[in-house]
Amino acid sequence: MTTTPPVRLGLIGAGRIGTYHATTIARRLPEAELVLVADPADGAAARLAEPLGAEATRDSQALIEDPRVEAVAITCASTAHADLVVAAAAAGKAVFVEKPMAMTLADADRAIAACRAAGVPLQVGFNRRFAADFAAARAVVAAGGIGRPQLLRSLTRDPGLADPGGVPPWTIFTQTLIHDFDTLNWFNAGAGAVEVNAMADALVAPDFKHSGLLDTAVVTIRYDNGAIATAEASFSAAYGYDVRGEVFGSAGMVTAGSPAQVTMAHWSREGVWRPTVRADTVLFPDAYAAELASFCAAVRAGSAPEVGGADARAALAVALACIESVQTGGTVAVRDTDRVAGGVA
Amino acid sequence: MTTTPPVRLGLIGAGRIGTYHATTIARRLPEAELVLVADPADGAAARLAEPLGAEATRDSQALIEDPRVEAVAITCASTAHADLVVAAAAAGKAVFVEKPMAMTLADADRAIAACRAAGVPLQVGFNRRFAADFAAARAVVAAGGIGRPQLLRSLTRDPGLADPGGVPPWTIFTQTLIHDFDTLNWFNAGAGAVEVNAMADALVAPDFKHSGLLDTAVVTIRYDNGAIATAEASFSAAYGYDVRGEVFGSAGMVTAGSPAQVTMAHWSREGVWRPTVRADTVLFPDAYAAELASFCAAVRAGSAPEVGGADARAALAVALACIESVQTGGTVAVRDTDRVAGGVA
Amino acid sequence: MTTTPPVRLGLIGAGRIGTYHATTIARRLPEAELVLVADPADGAAARLAEPLGAEATRDSQALIEDPRVEAVAITCASTAHADLVVAAAAAGKAVFVEKPMAMTLADADRAIAACRAAGVPLQVGFNRRFAADFAAARAVVAAGGIGRPQLLRSLTRDPGLADPGGVPPWTIFTQTLIHDFDTLNWFNAGAGAVEVNAMADALVAPDFKHSGLLDTAVVTIRYDNGAIATAEASFSAAYGYDVRGEVFGSAGMVTAGSPAQVTMAHWSREGVWRPTVRADTVLFPDAYAAELASFCAAVRAGSAPEVGGADARAALAVALACIESVQTGGTVAVRDTDRVAGGVA
Amino acid sequence: MTTTPPVRLGLIGAGRIGTYHATTIARRLPEAELVLVADPADGAAARLAEPLGAEATRDSQALIEDPRVEAVAITCASTAHADLVVAAAAAGKAVFVEKPMAMTLADADRAIAACRAAGVPLQVGFNRRFAADFAAARAVVAAGGIGRPQLLRSLTRDPGLADPGGVPPWTIFTQTLIHDFDTLNWFNAGAGAVEVNAMADALVAPDFKHSGLLDTAVVTIRYDNGAIATAEASFSAAYGYDVRGEVFGSAGMVTAGSPAQVTMAHWSREGVWRPTVRADTVLFPDAYAAELASFCAAVRAGSAPEVGGADARAALAVALACIESVQTGGTVAVRDTDRVAGGVA
Repeated sequence: MTTTPPVRLGLIGAGRIGTYHATTIARRLPEAELVLVADPADGAAARLAEPLGAEATRDSQALIEDPRVEAVAITCASTAHADLVVAAAAAGKAVFVEKPMAMTLADADRAIAACRAAGVPLQVGFNRRFAADFAAARAVVAAGGIGRPQLLRSLTRDPGLADPGGVPPWTIFTQTLIHDFDTLNWFNAGAGAVEVNAMADALVAPDFKHSGLLDTAVVTIRYDNGAIATAEASFSAAYGYDVRGEVFGSAGMVTAGSPAQVTMAHWSREGVWRPTVRADTVLFPDAYAAELASFCAAVRAGSAPEVGGADARAALAVALACIESVQTGGTVAVRDTDRVAGGVA
Repeated sequence: MTTTPPVRLGLIGAGRIGTYHATTIARRLPEAELVLVADPADGAAARLAEPLGAEATRDSQALIEDPRVEAVAITCASTAHADLVVAAAAAGKAVFVEKPMAMTLADADRAIAACRAAGVPLQVGFNRRFAADFAAARAVVAAGGIGRPQLLRSLTRDPGLADPGGVPPWTIFTQTLIHDFDTLNWFNAGAGAVEVNAMADALVAPDFKHSGLLDTAVVTIRYDNGAIATAEASFSAAYGYDVRGEVFGSAGMVTAGSPAQVTMAHWSREGVWRPTVRADTVLFPDAYAAELASFCAAVRAGSAPEVGGADARAALAVALACIESVQTGGTVAVRDTDRVAGGVA
Repeated sequence: MTTTPPVRLGLIGAGRIGTYHATTIARRLPEAELVLVADPADGAAARLAEPLGAEATRDSQALIEDPRVEAVAITCASTAHADLVVAAAAAGKAVFVEKPMAMTLADADRAIAACRAAGVPLQVGFNRRFAADFAAARAVVAAGGIGRPQLLRSLTRDPGLADPGGVPPWTIFTQTLIHDFDTLNWFNAGAGAVEVNAMADALVAPDFKHSGLLDTAVVTIRYDNGAIATAEASFSAAYGYDVRGEVFGSAGMVTAGSPAQVTMAHWSREGVWRPTVRADTVLFPDAYAAELASFCAAVRAGSAPEVGGADARAALAVALACIESVQTGGTVAVRDTDRVAGGVA
Repeated sequence: MTTTPPVRLGLIGAGRIGTYHATTIARRLPEAELVLVADPADGAAARLAEPLGAEATRDSQALIEDPRVEAVAITCASTAHADLVVAAAAAGKAVFVEKPMAMTLADADRAIAACRAAGVPLQVGFNRRFAADFAAARAVVAAGGIGRPQLLRSLTRDPGLADPGGVPPWTIFTQTLIHDFDTLNWFNAGAGAVEVNAMADALVAPDFKHSGLLDTAVVTIRYDNGAIATAEASFSAAYGYDVRGEVFGSAGMVTAGSPAQVTMAHWSREGVWRPTVRADTVLFPDAYAAELASFCAAVRAGSAPEVGGADARAALAVALACIESVQTGGTVAVRDTDRVAGGVA
């Protein structure tokens, strides 16, 4: 019996999400091997790489070109994502990039085109697709269990807002709700978002609204199959993480996700109590492992990743339309999500 | 269209349960009419009857013989049940009797035989059979949804023990668990209880154990189809009423009942909280109405009530075996539940 | 002890909802007495009134003026509601009117002003306020349990659309979602709706869209306390009735309602299954009784009803803004809900 | 910063559970290193060890004496457990042993005494103590949240019985319910089991009853603090794994565990459906990792493991009393669980 050798990964960006991915790669995934970590900050790459048995560099281009690196995981600041995807593709490396893949549709098109030209697989970090609850819901929808989708809902509520002053404008759309936009697109597969209406405000930290903070948002999306979706986000859920999805259709409904943490219940004079998903927990730890395992499998099989550049572009297009909707106060058309410079990835 | 006239009911016993039944009959059931209430206590019958538009008497035999009374609801002290059933049957009146129908198997046989001889319907107040949750569970079992029953569970936990000194010995078996014994017999329909092991104690009010109080009990029952059942009771659930049932079989399981009261949930920093069924609530109010409606329908149709004398006897036989099990510390055979003096009701 | 005499009610409109209310009044409410039913259709009033021991008339004005009638329940077609409220007020009768109280803000103002001038209590049939789940949720919100409301949701999905051709235009807003608008206003008490965006379509019965049918709708409402609410409706939920509410705030969340019917669960090789709320069920039967009991209590106490004319106007204002939003495709300001001709009821 | 070096483990027994533990050690636990695997079967140790980067041997005593091995994980057949614990202790190695630690109380005492004499830590594989649901429930009990325990329940239902002919007699007590006995002892910490009544049968595979198969059992345990517990097992749950616990006390109740797998629900015309824990799943994967991590931490800290020899002995004593109860048909005293030859471990 021959065993598939692990995919040798280089990881760019040793921040919070990079640390989580690196640890998952090194500790949980026999199908992957962490060989190199790059981060320009003083000692950051080494601090992450060494305990995990990997090497470190400050130079992301060196990492990309290192012959030991088969595939690159891009987990640094979002603004650098698109350029790094293009660079990795140019070096012929498979690419896993955190969401959002790009900050503009032009950059998204550029990244997709580069990977397409190089013939390298490109996967985007929409990990909710790999969460058991959401995947089971999607499977029911895909099997026709709810008929034609008519009403959809996806929401993300994070447990806290540590530094309201440090949140870049539009983060709620480009970083948070982009998960929900992808989930909705995925649940309503085959349909495209047509128009968007967004209402948003700084209700958690109103003192920071003047600096562009929006911490609460509700988005309505109309799809070209008639379905209407709602996406909703808050940066501060007192009871902990809350990520839920719902698809209602002509033959039924699926629901997924719950802020309840375990099955334990405490029944007392006051009623019944259950713990919820705490702020100090990583949400969807198994989904993080599963998305990377799926990426490695696609790399080895030479097959298309389960969630690719076109998905990233489609979610981004909704996020950008939301920003325009907030700016204009009106309903905004979502730009054509099918046209990608140089073709479709 | 001719309308079925309401069944004219006389009710014996104006205590707590009698008051509840009388109010249900007068207020909620178009198919019943409360015509007479009997209670020997000074003014008790009148206090209950008058606001409900019924008449009152101190004399239960007068009520039984009153020509306006078609059917008798016996809701007085359990020790008087069997004699009143016999008397009502002798007067040719249909009988609804609260549980337990009798305190001895001989009395149960006598009551059953009297109703059989008189050709009057006899229904026993096992209201759990008319609770929507439990009826739905039973329907699944009856339809073969769980295959052959193998493990069963029924439990009753009441929300408080107001007067531990006033609880007659063996109440936990003859008054409380008798509901569970009937539920288990009903869930495991067609099978008979073979042997019983009971462990019981005074854990809620240990100071009253010397006076015969048992406030906590666990019973194991082996049935002649091999199934093994557990029944469990406590007189003091801090979180309120808790009545649940479970049937596990070769092809699956049904569960029914929950101490949670409403679907409302409060999610906060402390977790998620839901209210439970409070002590000041009547449990199964709809089941009380449904069992009386079913009784009236059987009276009008001349058909057998849904839960009759043989059911009451079968549950009593288990309760009496439990008492013997506690007394001897061993496993006790349940006396033949099929043999009824004069035949089977 | 003196007993409060029942409130003598006359009911106008013997259709489906009128029949339900009349039966509730006659059968379940000791605090009410059904004395007269009016309906212009041939024999309709008599067919409803007689089995309930009430009298019948074809003439609603005669009912209103009948000296035996203390209070009028208006349960006929919505277009007649406002005029009948005015007429009943002119006769000095207390008024219970089904939703919507009026079809225009001017009519709503007129009805409120008439009751105010006559000094008669006016209650509107928003029965969801009396459903145990929703009332418990509201109580948590009112007690500060979720802090300041930020995101709200209310949805109504009915189990079927029997006659798509017979649904008047805008029904989804004026008849269905008006419940949700009131629920949201009530949950977010003290705040007023500022602007509305509505997306709606005929997804259940697309063939009837040309005749004005809208059977699916999503509404976003911005309130003057910053909170953003979503209301959602469908006329055809395959799994049965689905009415849910959710309020998320600075300190937590409440959720209420579930399409699951009973606690019974069936666990088998296929997974776990529970029944849902069927189409042949009346939703919230206890809430119908509770709202009428509350109305009778207010009549007897001379106090303000729990849900009055201003509430009806506020919900109507949102519904009308939704219609304009669908017509214009944009976000629409909700007209001032505080200004009522002649004052505030 | 100095890092704690991983605990170097040798594992004896390359069967199903050994394979699972070995993989967990090698793949998921940075605090452990798998250095050696022993199994007498032809090639078995090598097949497991090699892909995990460990060495293999057929000789368990060689493994125990190997100087690279700091701690021994005993995962072979139960009948060999006690002797291997004694041998590992004699070699001064820390011991992790799967349940049951021994098959007789004498062997249990011998194993405990050997570890005590050698001063080595001894942990037993009661992994349910490390399952999040159960640990949360226990924490509530330990914090006094339910007052004094009065009624307890623990059940284990496995999803299938592949080879009824290959099940050794009494397996249901010594291998399956021993988990529940430990859970109950742990929930009711500080109390000792006094007497036991067991009813058991071959209901899943009645044709194998003659060979000693018992596949269905219900056990009642009375504790010296008055509490009464029920333990229940079946070898064939159609709906998948079902492991639940419940502790009811003077101030409330905790419940833990559910056969429902994910939060996903599918609502359709037939009702609401959720998937359950499938037969092809490893139950409690995180608990397997957590118990080994806890063992490694105890080894490094030189502290007592969270679940030790005395716990193993106490659960075994209940299992052995159950066997006697089945044999005699009566209630059986549990032998003193405190007296351990040579002291208490």
